[in-house]
Amino acid sequence: MENNENSGKPQFFTEYFYYKSLGFTTKIKEVLHSEETPFQKIDVYQTESIGKLLTLNGKTMVSDLDEFVYHEVLAHVSYAVARSDQRVLIIGGGDGGVVREFVKYSNIKAIHLVEIDERVVAVSRQYFPHCTSGLDDPRVQILPKDGIKYIQEEIAPASYDIVIIDSTDPEEMAEGLFTDRFYKAINRALSADGIMLAQTENPFLDEYGLKKIYDNLRAAFPIVESFSAPIIIYPGAYWSFAFASKKYSGTDLNPSKSAQMKEISLNCKWYNPDWHRGSFALSNFHRKQIGQK
Amino acid sequence: MENNENSGKPQFFTEYFYYKSLGFTTKIKEVLHSEETPFQKIDVYQTESIGKLLTLNGKTMVSDLDEFVYHEVLAHVSYAVARSDQRVLIIGGGDGGVVREFVKYSNIKAIHLVEIDERVVAVSRQYFPHCTSGLDDPRVQILPKDGIKYIQEEIAPASYDIVIIDSTDPEEMAEGLFTDRFYKAINRALSADGIMLAQTENPFLDEYGLKKIYDNLRAAFPIVESFSAPIIIYPGAYWSFAFASKKYSGTDLNPSKSAQMKEISLNCKWYNPDWHRGSFALSNFHRKQIGQK
Repeated sequence: MENNENSGKPQFFTEYFYYKSLGFTTKIKEVLHSEETPFQKIDVYQTESIGKLLTLNGKTMVSDLDEFVYHEVLAHVSYAVARSDQRVLIIGGGDGGVVREFVKYSNIKAIHLVEIDERVVAVSRQYFPHCTSGLDDPRVQILPKDGIKYIQEEIAPASYDIVIIDSTDPEEMAEGLFTDRFYKAINRALSADGIMLAQTENPFLDEYGLKKIYDNLRAAFPIVESFSAPIIIYPGAYWSFAFASKKYSGTDLNPSKSAQMKEISLNCKWYNPDWHRGSFALSNFHRKQIGQK
Repeated sequence: MENNENSGKPQFFTEYFYYKSLGFTTKIKEVLHSEETPFQKIDVYQTESIGKLLTLNGKTMVSDLDEFVYHEVLAHVSYAVARSDQRVLIIGGGDGGVVREFVKYSNIKAIHLVEIDERVVAVSRQYFPHCTSGLDDPRVQILPKDGIKYIQEEIAPASYDIVIIDSTDPEEMAEGLFTDRFYKAINRALSADGIMLAQTENPFLDEYGLKKIYDNLRAAFPIVESFSAPIIIYPGAYWSFAFASKKYSGTDLNPSKSAQMKEISLNCKWYNPDWHRGSFALSNFHRKQIGQK
């Protein structure tokens, strides 16, 4: 925070990004929670205008204002395309938001959440119960493990139909989640119809090498596409996501699910199939940044 | 700026928005220009990572990083749909960026830029010559006038085929640019095939009443639609635009221009017709915020 808590001045949380040259700042009413886990620092703020805000190592992760965008997008875009969809793996995502969206589908039989830091789950249960509401569904299993080891060493080929990488930025412990070795291991972990989605940063603020990330994906999957959705609390808000699969394009929605997706959309705050298709129609800039021909 | 210029500390420009509860901050190297005109305060900063930045009354207007998005979108979305397109009016937009895009089309015969503050044009010529490069085209006429008076009192019906409202936020002198009275006057100023585009703020940070703005548009035009494009330097980056017309939907691109738009897109940094169509496919949230059934 910029100011001393007891000074009487307004308190702000500020995240600096893009080589610390830019920042997003939000006025806070109260620090609700603050702890150092073996993995990272977790803070929860009550803000003035965007509800509660969860940060990890000082980086914004989840806010009440816009959590629905990120969580709905990852779950419903993958499900709408998937031909096989009984077994879902989420790496990261300890706030539970993506799980909440997947449990809406009765034909999903198993949802595994591999979150390295159990404290993220516990803190989210306390402060974001509307995000964690799906975690007690009997189909959900929370595995407090390193997602990289889990994918590369622990599971049999074709164990999952959908894999979601709900990670932090490509640095420190999350760096390995953006390598070709990891993406190839995910390919192996996926069924023949398998689909992978991952958050891939802001193309305008290309601090981590977006083209390299997509090249790594292309080394592992025959179909690699990208789409975007706005996450207001993330650096520069324009957020890109990767869609990778063995067979299907991200705009090739499973026609047998068309009635189901229409119905699900009625209860979504963000997602609908028209938006889904439209979001894959990339600008020249987005194409260039990910090295798409 | 947050810090004293001579303190030796890094200098930041910060814009607070959404009831001053959130902010965007950018590290600056140098204040290139600062003046009070009869209408507003104009500042130009050399920033560390987003090039030059122009602000009006402390609000971000144009940066080298992303100016192409805003300017390409307003010009090419309207032109691609237009059946009549010889006479273009831009209200505001003294930085010249939208004009630069329109002069690419040889069949446009007249481009009128009604900018109330001549100093914005002069300062832009000095610091953003890549934006103002179209202003000396013989088809361009710069009118230093109040856009509201001009539209409501000075021009004959059906004077223009395309009208672009490139305005600041709906407050102070720009407030009148978002009223039903003004939109009805634009309808009158447009030819039978006429199209109007306007910037309409961030639907997530609804400080100005987005539904009311769109209701005002609906009171003036039979067809009112919305789309979005990211402007990284604007509050929350997710930016909405209104498309209003008497006859054509925003996704009903003029088929006789299809080859021309493809060719123009090759030299655009952002725009292409696929993106154009996709950007009108709105999320549930965007639809709700503008009161779309």
